[in-house]
Amino acid sequence: MASLATNAKKHKVCVVGSGNWGTTIAKVVAENVKENDEIFDEEVQMWVYEEDYQVPKESKHYDPGSALSTKPQKLTQLINRLHENVKYLPDIALPKNVVANPDIADAVKEATILIFNLPHQFIGRICDNLKGKVIPYARGISCIKGVAVSEKGCELFSDSIGSKLGIYCGALSGANIATEVALEKWSETTIAYDPPPMDSRQPTPAGTPSDSPRGSSANLAELSTELSGGQLSTAKGTKSKGVALPAEYPPLNHINMRKLFHRPYFHVHMVHDVAGVSLGGALKNIVAIAAGWVDGLGWGDNAKAAVERLGILEEVKFGKTFFSKTCRTETFTEESCGVADMITSCSGGRNFRCAKMSVKEGKSIGEIEERELNGQKLQGTSTAYEVNSFLKTQGMEQEFPLFTAVYSILEGKNKPEDIPQLVER
Amino acid sequence: MASLATNAKKHKVCVVGSGNWGTTIAKVVAENVKENDEIFDEEVQMWVYEEDYQVPKESKHYDPGSALSTKPQKLTQLINRLHENVKYLPDIALPKNVVANPDIADAVKEATILIFNLPHQFIGRICDNLKGKVIPYARGISCIKGVAVSEKGCELFSDSIGSKLGIYCGALSGANIATEVALEKWSETTIAYDPPPMDSRQPTPAGTPSDSPRGSSANLAELSTELSGGQLSTAKGTKSKGVALPAEYPPLNHINMRKLFHRPYFHVHMVHDVAGVSLGGALKNIVAIAAGWVDGLGWGDNAKAAVERLGILEEVKFGKTFFSKTCRTETFTEESCGVADMITSCSGGRNFRCAKMSVKEGKSIGEIEERELNGQKLQGTSTAYEVNSFLKTQGMEQEFPLFTAVYSILEGKNKPEDIPQLVER
Repeated sequence: MASLATNAKKHKVCVVGSGNWGTTIAKVVAENVKENDEIFDEEVQMWVYEEDYQVPKESKHYDPGSALSTKPQKLTQLINRLHENVKYLPDIALPKNVVANPDIADAVKEATILIFNLPHQFIGRICDNLKGKVIPYARGISCIKGVAVSEKGCELFSDSIGSKLGIYCGALSGANIATEVALEKWSETTIAYDPPPMDSRQPTPAGTPSDSPRGSSANLAELSTELSGGQLSTAKGTKSKGVALPAEYPPLNHINMRKLFHRPYFHVHMVHDVAGVSLGGALKNIVAIAAGWVDGLGWGDNAKAAVERLGILEEVKFGKTFFSKTCRTETFTEESCGVADMITSCSGGRNFRCAKMSVKEGKSIGEIEERELNGQKLQGTSTAYEVNSFLKTQGMEQEFPLFTAVYSILEGKNKPEDIPQLVER
Repeated sequence: MASLATNAKKHKVCVVGSGNWGTTIAKVVAENVKENDEIFDEEVQMWVYEEDYQVPKESKHYDPGSALSTKPQKLTQLINRLHENVKYLPDIALPKNVVANPDIADAVKEATILIFNLPHQFIGRICDNLKGKVIPYARGISCIKGVAVSEKGCELFSDSIGSKLGIYCGALSGANIATEVALEKWSETTIAYDPPPMDSRQPTPAGTPSDSPRGSSANLAELSTELSGGQLSTAKGTKSKGVALPAEYPPLNHINMRKLFHRPYFHVHMVHDVAGVSLGGALKNIVAIAAGWVDGLGWGDNAKAAVERLGILEEVKFGKTFFSKTCRTETFTEESCGVADMITSCSGGRNFRCAKMSVKEGKSIGEIEERELNGQKLQGTSTAYEVNSFLKTQGMEQEFPLFTAVYSILEGKNKPEDIPQLVER
């Protein structure tokens, strides 16, 4: 294997997105590129959707004598001058090597590693803007939780990104809350990166983990080819079309990817299962609704733990049924993106809390959502509907009794009290 | 296979123990024997350690005009007259087919199914009393959580019972609290029952689950043979010495065992892994201490979930290393006795609560224990010490960083704040 000294080039990182999670991840990777400057360029670009923002009086950066404080400023300028994302991640100092950039094409133009961290509804438009502007051998990591599920099929966001840009894209998901990671409170995360074979500097020995079957939505793509004419891309397809990472760069293997993300307060475990990592972050929201109902009924911690356990097993079944080529049981049962994220989401997440309130107050979850969330929508309810419409087209509602129970209860066909009977086999 | 009609005999059940969990399990099985009277005798014997008890004035059974209330009575008489264990499970009506019996030899004399449900420190004495008095083809289920761990080795309570009585004994463990099950609040449990081959009415087809390797503490027994001269019994040994269940009885397979325990509010999953089921109930208490510390530090739900995840993986490793012949990963990662019991114990159990208080108040866990537990001891701290002394003799402390971290912190060599660094790989 080539020694580090022979790598003439370094990887340059761009974070696409600058909300509280995007800015937090920019902080994490900026700390790491400085400590691993034999692999990574020291500057981390962060694309920021430009807007005007006035530093609030509570900010420690507020200075009544400075024009920076007394009138609205470009957010990118504030970030680059104050080294803080005063709007979306206030009171957290960013390393000086995070450079905010309002021009997305300019931000990505030298990047060999693209980290996508923005609301999922913007993926399509952003990727359209980026088409043809990213380095063809760039590699992506999607930090966007969830998958796009409809009656037509399920598509991983990492696959949407990968196929639109013609690059390989992995996924990061775990039991993480942006502000806790930003405050350097300890948590863990899971990164799925199943690098394309052409990036391998050596033939992969048979039987090694990276020799696992590839193509994360292959099974579903076959399925949906029948259903919808094959509009789904697959990671497999993306991978075979892409351009290999040139040999002048350090390899983008699990060791180096981990170096980019792992911190003493943010422990990273690398896996190959992109589908499993992505599914856990979406399906847990359905389970959290059921856990909230059960808790609201006053049934105690054991009933709630039963819901979580059943939820993990239905995640496994969903993954194995619809993403059979790559999905692994242990991604759900042993990784932060699976069991740990499930535990956290069923402890205090908004899906759990709203569902619990709905039972305790005898109101519909829609009423609670409206009152508590300022117009935002619960992911758990929309995911429950989307997953149900998909399961219906597959004729598989009965195979997923907990997911189906949540749908039936949301529809008013059953009550939370029916859950034990609905999941009994 | 013989049809049910040909079974001339029925199984008779005795519950050995009558605390709140023992009485609750007696209620559960008494409900089931009535509903499955083609398999089970309708009477459930419950052995009660006899004592005098006076019905308190708050009890709905208190009647100032009755001698039953105005002076102390035998507890067995109160249970059989009032159909309530007024002392250990007050306010829960017991089915009339639960018969309290103060004479242990009489209670077990016709029983083909013995359910052990008493504090672990009494196992030795009770089994000494029972020796030679149980039907030689009786089968046991131990509901006693935990394992006996010392520097010499680990012994499953089900194996201690089995070897002392010369019968096969399985185990029941799950995310259960006696009073919640008694109130018929929904929960799940796991029963490990790996029936001895001689009980099989048909040759087991190769490759079926019941064809899994048997002998739950075989590996450890080999180990401890070197360490201590082989005083450990193994389920394997017990099984080969026992007497086959006569063909006049319905088979004691997973289907019939589940019928004895499964209720609409108490969902049972049957497995073969007795060691895994037993270990989960012991090792989780160590993890709950760590979870309490982390929560006490204010690190949030994600840090706590990370501790739980790491704890489950160390349970798996412990089982696979020391009980390799039978222990299965999924017992810990997918069953109620594993992941669900872990979640519950790290939510509100006493180990969790006392550890959390100790950090918040800056006191030692011993001080908190003394103040909060009325002279009772935390299982988590004693198990942490026992497991550590065993790991030390195996030279394997470093292989179990979380268990070892808990020990080091209890010993004052580290602080709870060090956990992320101690478990980082």
